[in-house]
This record gives sequence, C-alpha cells and structure tokens, in this order.
Amino acid sequence: MAKKIAVILPEMFEDSEYTEPAKAFATKGHEVINNGLIAGKTVKGKKEGTKVKIDKAVGEVTIDDFDGLLIPGGYSPDKLRVDDNAVQFSADFVKSNKPVFAICHAGQLPVTAQVLQGRKFTCYKSIIQNIKNAGAEFIGSEVVVDGNIVSSRHPSDLPAFIRESLKKL
Amino acid sequence: MAKKIAVILPEMFEDSEYTEPAKAFATKGHEVINNGLIAGKTVKGKKEGTKVKIDKAVGEVTIDDFDGLLIPGGYSPDKLRVDDNAVQFSADFVKSNKPVFAICHAGQLPVTAQVLQGRKFTCYKSIIQNIKNAGAEFIGSEVVVDGNIVSSRHPSDLPAFIRESLKKL
Repeated sequence: MAKKIAVILPEMFEDSEYTEPAKAFATKGHEVINNGLIAGKTVKGKKEGTKVKIDKAVGEVTIDDFDGLLIPGGYSPDKLRVDDNAVQFSADFVKSNKPVFAICHAGQLPVTAQVLQGRKFTCYKSIIQNIKNAGAEFIGSEVVVDGNIVSSRHPSDLPAFIRESLKKL
Repeated sequence: MAKKIAVILPEMFEDSEYTEPAKAFATKGHEVINNGLIAGKTVKGKKEGTKVKIDKAVGEVTIDDFDGLLIPGGYSPDKLRVDDNAVQFSADFVKSNKPVFAICHAGQLPVTAQVLQGRKFTCYKSIIQNIKNAGAEFIGSEVVVDGNIVSSRHPSDLPAFIRESLKKL
C-alpha cells in the first residue's frame, strides 16, 4: 500500500541523503512530501545544489498527515533544531509507532527533542558524543534498526539505509 | 605583556567571530596564530568568504606553545570535532588555567572532548541541549565567564565577548 513520507528539509541538506531515499520511496509507489521551515521556498543542497520546493511549513502539519519521516543529514538538521515546530514534529514521530529514517547529522534533531534515551542509534562521527550524552546507545554499524527508528552514519551507508527503511513501509 | 593566542579554524567558520576578536587581540599587542586541520591551506569563512592562511596543523602544536585559545563558531567546530588532535587540543586547554574563548557553535568541540561537566557555559540556540547533556550549566547571557572559559551566544554578543576575553589576557 502506498505510504506518505514526510521529509524535513531546510537549506544545506546533504543532497544524496535526500535524493536517493526519495527516489527509492517513489519507485515503490510511496509519496514524498517536502516539509521545511517556510512553505513555498526553494531550498538547496549543500554539495550539489539540488533544488527542492518546500510544500508545507513543518508548523502547518502533524504526524497524523503522514506514515513516516525522513531526516536527511548535512547542515540542515542544525537549522531544524532551532525551530520549535520541527523539534516537536520529530519528537512526536519518534514517540509514535511510525517509522523515522535518520542519517548522518539527522540525530541532532531527536537529541534536541530529548527522545533518544535508551534507543539504539548510529550517526556521523561528529555527533557520536551528543548521541551518547542524550542517553542513546551508539552502534557503529552501517544501519541500526531499533523499533521504529532506522539510522545510518553517512552517504556510503545509503544502500543499507534504504533497504531497511523500505522494510518499514 | 603580549600573549600568543591560538585559533583553530577549518573551513566555514563564522567570519566575524574570527575577524573581530583577532583584530581586538592584535590591537592590544597580542599575537594570533591560525591553526587548522592542514598546514599551509587557505580556509574560507561561511558568510563573507574571509580567507585565512593556516600557519600550523593542530596536530603539530601543543598548548605549551600558546597563552590562550579562540574557537570561532559557524560550521567549523563540526569539522574540528571529527579530528582527534583538535578534540585533544581543546581538552588540554579547558583543563589548564589558560583562557579559552568559545562563541556560538564552538561549544561542540569541548562537548566532544567531555570537559564541560559542571562548568557554566553559553552558546548558540541549536546546541543548548548538547551543552546541558554534557553536564554543563547553560546560562542564557551575552557572555559567561567561568574560571578560564569565556563563552558567548552569537555574533551580536561580540562586544561583550571581546571585552571579557581581553580581561583574561
């Protein structure tokens, strides 16, 4: 059955961590909805300048509108974690049974939302200590699945990340 | 007496958080030495593209070579915290009696080095939860002085940050 996947995407996202999962989800018939901080804005990726038009501001939606959440890495999670609506949106997802797909720097958002206590999680090297300090169990694998959370370390892990994410849809 | 101030500066530092303190230190007769990840490389600021030639790699120096440390914010602290030499260098400074000047995202480096337990500290909004989770006491002031650590939140705090930093030299 086709699912609706929310992405939260401000400026400077890691291009491939958005484009590759989004393409894989669409290929399987799922719908990807691009949420951001400002509706109608076009945001750009950090390395390749991939342009994405934002459908809705994260403050205008709730997790009831979606079946899953993708948080790409790059510098975009740093911009999300200063936005109270984005922090709350990610918290609501992690606490629900709906799948959350988090790669690279994405973990910064649920750390800020204080919802990783006791969860198994992996991430980019720079935020490992933050993950541990948030009470999560860091695991240095290409992909970690813990209940509704699928996490990976960096773009090279995308095949494993996409494989395990698709199993949750 | 003239002091030697180390800066650690990879790509994408917040321009003004380097240029303004560096200028103020030099005006008072102090010497600023630009350390980075690769000696001889020219790095650029995030907003204004300020170019800075790196004198030495952080792995080639020790805190014995300097009287103080400046860590500008921007995205550069995220690049520093994946470098074991930079993490150790910042840890050695914080644990010494030599002053450490940290603004904006700079706190990410001592968080990774696990040396902020019990310290009073301030920072950019995005990393407040990381500072708290590291065992520090977050204070939402323009400048916080705790022993050898001087910290501020963002570029608007630069006058207070520079004023208190100069008192430590």
